[in-house]
Amino acid sequence: MQWCIVASLLTIFTSSQGIITTLSQSNGKYKYDYTTVPFLAEVFKLLVSSCLLWRECQKSPLPKMTTDWKSIRLFPIPSIIYLIHNNVQFATLIYVDTSTYQIMGNLKIVITGILFRLFLRKKLSNLQWMAIVLLAVGTATSQVKGCGEVSCDSLFSAPIQGYMLGILSACLSALAGIYTEFLMKKNNDSLYWQNVQLYTFGAIFNLARLVLDDFRGGFEKGPWWQRLFNGYTITTWVVVLNLGCSGLLVSWLMKYADNIVKVYSTSMAMLLTMVLSVFLFSFRPTLQLFLGIIICMMSLHMYFAPPGMLVDLPSVGKADPKSLIDVSIERRTVS
Amino acid sequence: MQWCIVASLLTIFTSSQGIITTLSQSNGKYKYDYTTVPFLAEVFKLLVSSCLLWRECQKSPLPKMTTDWKSIRLFPIPSIIYLIHNNVQFATLIYVDTSTYQIMGNLKIVITGILFRLFLRKKLSNLQWMAIVLLAVGTATSQVKGCGEVSCDSLFSAPIQGYMLGILSACLSALAGIYTEFLMKKNNDSLYWQNVQLYTFGAIFNLARLVLDDFRGGFEKGPWWQRLFNGYTITTWVVVLNLGCSGLLVSWLMKYADNIVKVYSTSMAMLLTMVLSVFLFSFRPTLQLFLGIIICMMSLHMYFAPPGMLVDLPSVGKADPKSLIDVSIERRTVS
Repeated sequence: MQWCIVASLLTIFTSSQGIITTLSQSNGKYKYDYTTVPFLAEVFKLLVSSCLLWRECQKSPLPKMTTDWKSIRLFPIPSIIYLIHNNVQFATLIYVDTSTYQIMGNLKIVITGILFRLFLRKKLSNLQWMAIVLLAVGTATSQVKGCGEVSCDSLFSAPIQGYMLGILSACLSALAGIYTEFLMKKNNDSLYWQNVQLYTFGAIFNLARLVLDDFRGGFEKGPWWQRLFNGYTITTWVVVLNLGCSGLLVSWLMKYADNIVKVYSTSMAMLLTMVLSVFLFSFRPTLQLFLGIIICMMSLHMYFAPPGMLVDLPSVGKADPKSLIDVSIERRTVS
Repeated sequence: MQWCIVASLLTIFTSSQGIITTLSQSNGKYKYDYTTVPFLAEVFKLLVSSCLLWRECQKSPLPKMTTDWKSIRLFPIPSIIYLIHNNVQFATLIYVDTSTYQIMGNLKIVITGILFRLFLRKKLSNLQWMAIVLLAVGTATSQVKGCGEVSCDSLFSAPIQGYMLGILSACLSALAGIYTEFLMKKNNDSLYWQNVQLYTFGAIFNLARLVLDDFRGGFEKGPWWQRLFNGYTITTWVVVLNLGCSGLLVSWLMKYADNIVKVYSTSMAMLLTMVLSVFLFSFRPTLQLFLGIIICMMSLHMYFAPPGMLVDLPSVGKADPKSLIDVSIERRTVS
């Protein structure tokens, strides 16, 4: 199945994103302006999609492209949701620490399932619902703070606003994904044409953010075009390309698979990053990481395996209590 | 279903066992000799079973009782396995600390499943296997050491002998359960007659242990009959009765249900004890306890719910990408 390959690629790209980003730092600090990376990734995705669309236009039949404003005006919406999400995230982190925020982020998985059901009207079996909950529980388990780690009291002690905002943040993140799936599937337009619209707005919104940062910072670090490429190394470019490729794979999945596939893909990537970190950055493996991986693997199998494979009992005979050892007990009844 | 009630009762008795045992201490110490408790519980179970058997013998039809030595000689085997288990446990704790031992103890759940399949020839669906693994993972998750707790490095740093012995200990514990189920189901003998045989040997082996302890300790604390009842309070008697009742319920489950039901029952009891400890002994609730409970509940549902309930997709129609918002987009194709 094609979507399996795309999902696996997304897992590899997403997990390497964390690793390469860490490698792109020198002495634990970024020598470049990290906010320029998503902008360049949007531009990269726009260029790739434009080229592919252009190539598609050379062939017949011509790709289907809806150019009605009524359709186009829907494409900035995911960017707008992400913009609101970023601000909510910023507000959440005033109340809760990053590890609590990360744990709460797993709610996104369950909320994606709920929105998938409510808005896209997709039906899920009870087992699939359980699998989605288990995926969230599994990723959360792997993130449980180990012994001796600092800032442990914070998990249940943040103010209520922190939790409310954390849930809102997870909802917005899930909504952006669900909305994108709706956009990609609402008509039979060419994927590349849909991408061009999506990434044009994406690039514009990211650019607006850079400009806004300039004004906020009083041009202390210079205008954005001076910060662009400043301090960039080969590794930084790999980060940009990697982020861009992940984005293109997500678009493909949104059109030809669905949000749940994407959620599994990125959750597995998170676990893979943690496993790789054990080897690459000599992180200490924890029991909770090991348990989290088992839970997520079970969840993956529960969600995607054909139902018949899961519940059909093998056809061989009934239980035989005599089989433990070969005893031939004479049954004598006292009467 | 009758076994549901018995299993629930076992959960309540097992979880209160931990609580009452803690309450029976004064200033964190036992004022009585704890090794006398299992002996008295065996005697209690023997008395109860004898009475019930006697009452059964008054009625017709008479209960079925195999009195052949070939059958009776099998009944001390569970006690012998537990005896070996106790010694292996003792040896294991030389190499690993108690919390590592506790975590490894969850392997018993999976090993019970395997022995259940191998020796009792019971068939399990893929989903039920997954449920059993998830139960073990769930109970282990709830036991993950929280932040700031001491002796955290030990989990992956014990000598290999420690892990081997820990696994052996889990195997023996599972084997004792499986063997008891085999004994109880191998013929249609009266449950009470089977119990009388089982607990007679149980009482003998426990008594032997008390006598052995006397000789080992050089009678420093006096002979066992002096230690018996010494320092006993009402709470201690409740501990004895509670342990005895749990044992009787386990016997019932071994005959009329199976080991897996028992394993679920005692695992749920472990979680219930942890939850009750939060309220009774002001233990700090941890995220891992919360996650463990979710995992075990999912596992319970996966194992026992009728397969049709889990995988049957609801019959309502297909996904409709238009359902997110009511848009009527005119599809114009650029050509």
